[in-house]
Amino acid sequence: MLDKESKIPLYSQLMDILIHDIESHMQEDEKMLSEREICKKFDVSRTTVRQTFQELEREGYIYIKHGKGAFVTSNKFNQNLQGFYSFTDEMKKLGKEPTSKVIKFEIITSNNDIAKKMKIESEDLVYKFTRLRLANKEKMMVETTYVPYNMFPGKDDLNRNPLYDIFRDRFNTVVEYAEEVFIPVLTNEDEAEKLNIGVGSPSLKISRYAYNSNDKVIEYTISIARGDKFKYNIKLLKK
Amino acid sequence: MLDKESKIPLYSQLMDILIHDIESHMQEDEKMLSEREICKKFDVSRTTVRQTFQELEREGYIYIKHGKGAFVTSNKFNQNLQGFYSFTDEMKKLGKEPTSKVIKFEIITSNNDIAKKMKIESEDLVYKFTRLRLANKEKMMVETTYVPYNMFPGKDDLNRNPLYDIFRDRFNTVVEYAEEVFIPVLTNEDEAEKLNIGVGSPSLKISRYAYNSNDKVIEYTISIARGDKFKYNIKLLKK
Repeated sequence: MLDKESKIPLYSQLMDILIHDIESHMQEDEKMLSEREICKKFDVSRTTVRQTFQELEREGYIYIKHGKGAFVTSNKFNQNLQGFYSFTDEMKKLGKEPTSKVIKFEIITSNNDIAKKMKIESEDLVYKFTRLRLANKEKMMVETTYVPYNMFPGKDDLNRNPLYDIFRDRFNTVVEYAEEVFIPVLTNEDEAEKLNIGVGSPSLKISRYAYNSNDKVIEYTISIARGDKFKYNIKLLKK
Repeated sequence: MLDKESKIPLYSQLMDILIHDIESHMQEDEKMLSEREICKKFDVSRTTVRQTFQELEREGYIYIKHGKGAFVTSNKFNQNLQGFYSFTDEMKKLGKEPTSKVIKFEIITSNNDIAKKMKIESEDLVYKFTRLRLANKEKMMVETTYVPYNMFPGKDDLNRNPLYDIFRDRFNTVVEYAEEVFIPVLTNEDEAEKLNIGVGSPSLKISRYAYNSNDKVIEYTISIARGDKFKYNIKLLKK
């Protein structure tokens, strides 16, 4: 199967064979053969197998758990950042059923920190709610959202989805643009428990500031998105 | 210092005080007072302090190390994703001195996987090089780059910075646009060693495909950017 006369390095040939296996018949999170088994099966050195695994990991085909071996990476939902997106709409496009579970819902008096971020006055009232977002009942992300109370009085249904439909239909307010900041983080105990994944799992923290046509912040949300479920892509143009 | 009559919840008032401390005189990675010390100092319950810490962590002011306490988050370089960017130019803009250390440089025969990604033929030659990127001598990211050999023959200086200047000046080729994919990951042993940080540190894996005006891939790079050093921001417009 490996051609020792080929100009393509052995680790690189082995890589193609394993990628073919992964793509043709392996499942997400399925364990790969061990380094030792691959050495034997393909008659290559341990060094070659290590290099193959390292390249496969870098290219995103496998993930390596220290002391446990290598596993097939799960397919990720590919979120396009070319324009404004909502979890609900994106999941529907994929034919998945988006649902939300409201974990907490409060109206609080904002402190300086939140006030500064939302460009409101300290002591202004804000809705604060935490939602678990699911796709086909699978836990995908956990979000904490702040919305200025004064702009959207009447708390009865603001915690129901989709938030932007409520903004539009009940308050005639449309999100014109948003700013997002992305930081890779490890899930803490609380997030891990809510998402039902391990503490310290790689995830993306996304802070979103959504604005209306008067440049008012109408939503400030911090999301923790599972790193095994999402990837984010963007097209960059020459300036 | 805390006003128990205020409408702002205690945890939220405490948050403002600690943020003021962090911003006025604390250093990156400096340890916060312990939960117990804060309880005593401000005469509040452990539950209140826990909630404050949780909010401070979510807002990105502190990070919590299990069993070791809370620490001040380091300032992050804010990378704007509105257009094409290069590490060299961005660091210069900040008044930092960008340098690169070439860890490995090879010309290899590509396998199917790389060929497919670069839209070239399998067995075509490609440059493959791994670089450590530094700013003011601090290790920031590690990058593995592939460049088609046929388009840029003559290996002598392609591993020197900045790559795009060489494309432009020697080969009259300009990067017209790029696609990037972002995934949060944990550093593996190799990356951690190169970046001189702990194994399993949160980091961002960025895959870049850079194109010339004929839609040819002229660069394919996988970067591992330290999560404690970078944040990425984007403006999203209504579609």
